[in-house]
Amino acid sequence: MPSYRAPVEDTLFILNDVLGFHHHDNLPGFSDASPDVVEAVLSEGAKLADTVLAPLNAIGDKEGCKRLHDGSVTTPKGFKAGYDAFAQGGWMGLSVPEEYGGQGLPHTLNSAIQEFVSGANLALGMYPGLTQGAMAALLVHGSEEQKQAYLPKMVEGAWTGTMNLTEPHCGTDLGLLKTKAVPNGDGSYSLTGTKIFISAGEHDMAENIIHLVIARIEGAPAGTKGISLFVVPKFLINEDGSLGTRNGVSCGSIEHKMGIHGNSTCVMNYDGAKGWLVGQENRGLNAMFVMMNEARLAVGIQGLGQSEVAYQNAVAYAKDRLQGRSLTGAKAPDKAADPIIVHPDVRRTLMTIRAFNEAGRALMLWTALKADIGHRSPDAAERQAAEDHMGLMTPVVKGVLTDKGFDNAVAAQQMFGGHGYIEEWGMSQFVRDARIAMIYEGANGIQAMDLIGRKLPKDGGRAMMTFLGEVQTFIKDHDEDEAMKPFTGPLQAGLNDLQAATMWFMQNAFSKPDNAGAGATDYMHLFGLVAMGYMWGRIAKAAIARKAEDAGAAERMDVKLVTGRFYMERMLPETATRLTRIKAGAETTMALAVEAF
Amino acid sequence: MPSYRAPVEDTLFILNDVLGFHHHDNLPGFSDASPDVVEAVLSEGAKLADTVLAPLNAIGDKEGCKRLHDGSVTTPKGFKAGYDAFAQGGWMGLSVPEEYGGQGLPHTLNSAIQEFVSGANLALGMYPGLTQGAMAALLVHGSEEQKQAYLPKMVEGAWTGTMNLTEPHCGTDLGLLKTKAVPNGDGSYSLTGTKIFISAGEHDMAENIIHLVIARIEGAPAGTKGISLFVVPKFLINEDGSLGTRNGVSCGSIEHKMGIHGNSTCVMNYDGAKGWLVGQENRGLNAMFVMMNEARLAVGIQGLGQSEVAYQNAVAYAKDRLQGRSLTGAKAPDKAADPIIVHPDVRRTLMTIRAFNEAGRALMLWTALKADIGHRSPDAAERQAAEDHMGLMTPVVKGVLTDKGFDNAVAAQQMFGGHGYIEEWGMSQFVRDARIAMIYEGANGIQAMDLIGRKLPKDGGRAMMTFLGEVQTFIKDHDEDEAMKPFTGPLQAGLNDLQAATMWFMQNAFSKPDNAGAGATDYMHLFGLVAMGYMWGRIAKAAIARKAEDAGAAERMDVKLVTGRFYMERMLPETATRLTRIKAGAETTMALAVEAF
Repeated sequence: MPSYRAPVEDTLFILNDVLGFHHHDNLPGFSDASPDVVEAVLSEGAKLADTVLAPLNAIGDKEGCKRLHDGSVTTPKGFKAGYDAFAQGGWMGLSVPEEYGGQGLPHTLNSAIQEFVSGANLALGMYPGLTQGAMAALLVHGSEEQKQAYLPKMVEGAWTGTMNLTEPHCGTDLGLLKTKAVPNGDGSYSLTGTKIFISAGEHDMAENIIHLVIARIEGAPAGTKGISLFVVPKFLINEDGSLGTRNGVSCGSIEHKMGIHGNSTCVMNYDGAKGWLVGQENRGLNAMFVMMNEARLAVGIQGLGQSEVAYQNAVAYAKDRLQGRSLTGAKAPDKAADPIIVHPDVRRTLMTIRAFNEAGRALMLWTALKADIGHRSPDAAERQAAEDHMGLMTPVVKGVLTDKGFDNAVAAQQMFGGHGYIEEWGMSQFVRDARIAMIYEGANGIQAMDLIGRKLPKDGGRAMMTFLGEVQTFIKDHDEDEAMKPFTGPLQAGLNDLQAATMWFMQNAFSKPDNAGAGATDYMHLFGLVAMGYMWGRIAKAAIARKAEDAGAAERMDVKLVTGRFYMERMLPETATRLTRIKAGAETTMALAVEAF
Repeated sequence: MPSYRAPVEDTLFILNDVLGFHHHDNLPGFSDASPDVVEAVLSEGAKLADTVLAPLNAIGDKEGCKRLHDGSVTTPKGFKAGYDAFAQGGWMGLSVPEEYGGQGLPHTLNSAIQEFVSGANLALGMYPGLTQGAMAALLVHGSEEQKQAYLPKMVEGAWTGTMNLTEPHCGTDLGLLKTKAVPNGDGSYSLTGTKIFISAGEHDMAENIIHLVIARIEGAPAGTKGISLFVVPKFLINEDGSLGTRNGVSCGSIEHKMGIHGNSTCVMNYDGAKGWLVGQENRGLNAMFVMMNEARLAVGIQGLGQSEVAYQNAVAYAKDRLQGRSLTGAKAPDKAADPIIVHPDVRRTLMTIRAFNEAGRALMLWTALKADIGHRSPDAAERQAAEDHMGLMTPVVKGVLTDKGFDNAVAAQQMFGGHGYIEEWGMSQFVRDARIAMIYEGANGIQAMDLIGRKLPKDGGRAMMTFLGEVQTFIKDHDEDEAMKPFTGPLQAGLNDLQAATMWFMQNAFSKPDNAGAGATDYMHLFGLVAMGYMWGRIAKAAIARKAEDAGAAERMDVKLVTGRFYMERMLPETATRLTRIKAGAETTMALAVEAF
């Protein structure tokens, strides 16, 4: 049976030593998040993840969700209790403003908890995850009346939320959507249409489900300019806040998926369902975009969570499984064979995953912190810089953490040999579950296009210039530091590749946009490699400082320094190949006629 | 519903134009394989794969195998009919000598058919596949009496075969095996022990199952030097060849696996089962090794097969699915959106898989041809050179074709967006099925160790020197040819990286074997990149020649030339990163104490 232990210690190190979380206590909510509060929050969250959610993971995969004839959906045994524990622990509203029942704590802490929950039980974590996403949309775009009507109940966990975008014929290209909204004359609308791939669309965990739905108001312009956002509760809400009649929305079927079986992925039928406009008419896509950054960050975190749990179980197996002898002489001569962790190819695999996880965690927490600054700072310039970073880094965190998170789950599974392929060992589930994160909330190819087509050129490339400058300054600042040389040297090489790629696009993509498209995915990964390399630079700096002031931490810090050097020597240099591919341009990629395929 | 079309045309082009298959008609069996026979064989095999086996693939995944209380196992609906069609078509004995009922045709043709069968239905194809493996072991190591007793029935398909190696505590490290063989005094042995992961160990497709089992004869030396190979039929065979009493071997349970659900993966219990020695006492591992090359080649082919079928279905979807508009203006202005094949990132994905598949196919057919030459040539020097090649290239074909075959199935699945994650679309099955090929028949890390620890240094590096020399000669021979420049230039760069890596190991791995272990997987992939680059060089040469003599083929040949350039520009340059990693050595890989994990 696989197990999970939330990485509390590493998260605290990143927050406190690497990111200087406490330097931001001028921001609303941060002053409540003193170091001991942060530690308590993470420890409590870890306890929930490790002891309540993780033990339900395998059963969720095995049982899956079932739709009954009446359209109701049952979730796997224990899931409701797990969900209740999450809700009762106050986790749903951790960073929701206190006026709506939340705790108003920084989103950064919520992101750390999201990693723990995703690592422990991705499918279960999606129910509150979608609720948090829906709350975020309502917080930004909902009227005060809507916020008061929905948020406290959602924070409490009594009601969950969903996001309804996709239709059978339209996924990425939302301009094609057909779901219709007809005004009822009383301020409400009647929605009709079919939505697919609706996570947590129907289930037995909560009294009510608050669907956020995009639809086209009768007579609205075609394409993306005619899309509006609506809130459609499963049960209508009476004046006194009690639940009223059942609305005209129902689950038509649930999907048979490769993974996340514990989450009900529904086809949702809207048959004249009553809904209310959220935000402005025909501005629904903008409403979605605002919350998309945080949602995409959350999916990147899911990739990281699966990578971490797969790593932990691979380590446990590699220490336990006896097979063969070390190339440098028996390490366990009293046993029939050595544990496989002595073998360099096994080590290489484990080190690769570990070096990714720690840098990936730093990158996502750094970006989450920027989201907090962007939302909460009183200083407009600081807010803008933080929002620039958030916008630029979101597709990178989403695309790279989920692509590599999946690769890592596969690599961890490989450590188990044949046992990795047997469902009972649990590694297959991590791989199957991790797979979805590359797809939903914008497939990773779309993330790459968002990066190169929107985020990179935005405001004359301001966000990218700032990032490149920050990394360059970091390298310069540590140029004379002998202990930092193993980090700054390779980081400079990676940064040069990223600069060269950026320059290449500036010179070659405006005239031939296919050059941008053909290099987009490589650019996203090149960027991710450098961003994580920068994180390793900052982790190394923090580790060296910590060693100097705390001898007791020296051993643990040395482990980080070795892991960081592994990243610098063996992982970051992949930037060279990514750059070569980008510079190859689109010619051979696009040369063939469609019929030649 | 996914579909499959066996790549007959490309296989014929590789055999005839690239590899000069017909130049070998001095070898036994080859003279029977005239061009029209080859075309007929491949066309018939394709028909079986496309119309009989492929339609059973999804149902096999959905139904899986079931073990009943009496220990019998039922296979999915239609599987027996599919198996019978395979057997009745004479495919089982395609390259088995005629004296045992086979057709004695080249193994190269069998390899081509293996690709078709694996692409159409991997799980079903494993039943005959294991039978062919068991026949290969009996052909090389069995006594004449054993061959006469078993082979004709197996060729006929009336009996299937299995390979029993793994035990719960021993996979890679077979020296640990515990299954005991006690002499009965009549030339037979009583076998007792438990074997796991036995593919096709029990099923309802054939009258009898011939298990090949490795076990330790009572009193034999410990470790790998005390392992013997036995043949253990499910039903004992009477003097007259009819089936006798049930032997003491039974299926204890079947595994719940990530994929290949249609194949019964059994725990096999041997309770004093009657068996007979195959080959010499205590030489069982050698007996296994001889057949391992072909078995590993077959698994590499499975990786290729999954990559091909996933590609075909991704292409069909990409032509059909309308979403978004081309970056260079609408390509289907009459439709609501363009088909997604117009998008460069989709193209990049499809071209990457395609460029791999064609070169991978050439590499595996080239290696299969070497196996034929190694077994059939009357010329000792030619035999040796062919066996050198086969030994060296086997871990590369197995490791690289299955690692990348899996990656390609994942990439093809990604083209489907959310639909790729839904089981009904079939892409998930390709991914789940392809995953096993990286694990069984020696996990890919073991392939890498086999390459670097055994195959590379063997005979003073003779095989590797020959390969490097051959590629260098090819480049030199085409140095002046303008049309070949896009191929020879990048190939030289890749070859230089491979030479540098080889040299680095010679200088750094003997004194520190961990340096070899830490670089083994990167070396295997570096080698694979160059070997496939060489294949593209040869394909390009053949395509240019074909164009010159056959104007009707020009368009098709131009497609190959573009695809080859794509490989050279975008895929082969990965050698640089692989080399960097190798040269990083083992220091950071091995530096951490086990407790630090």
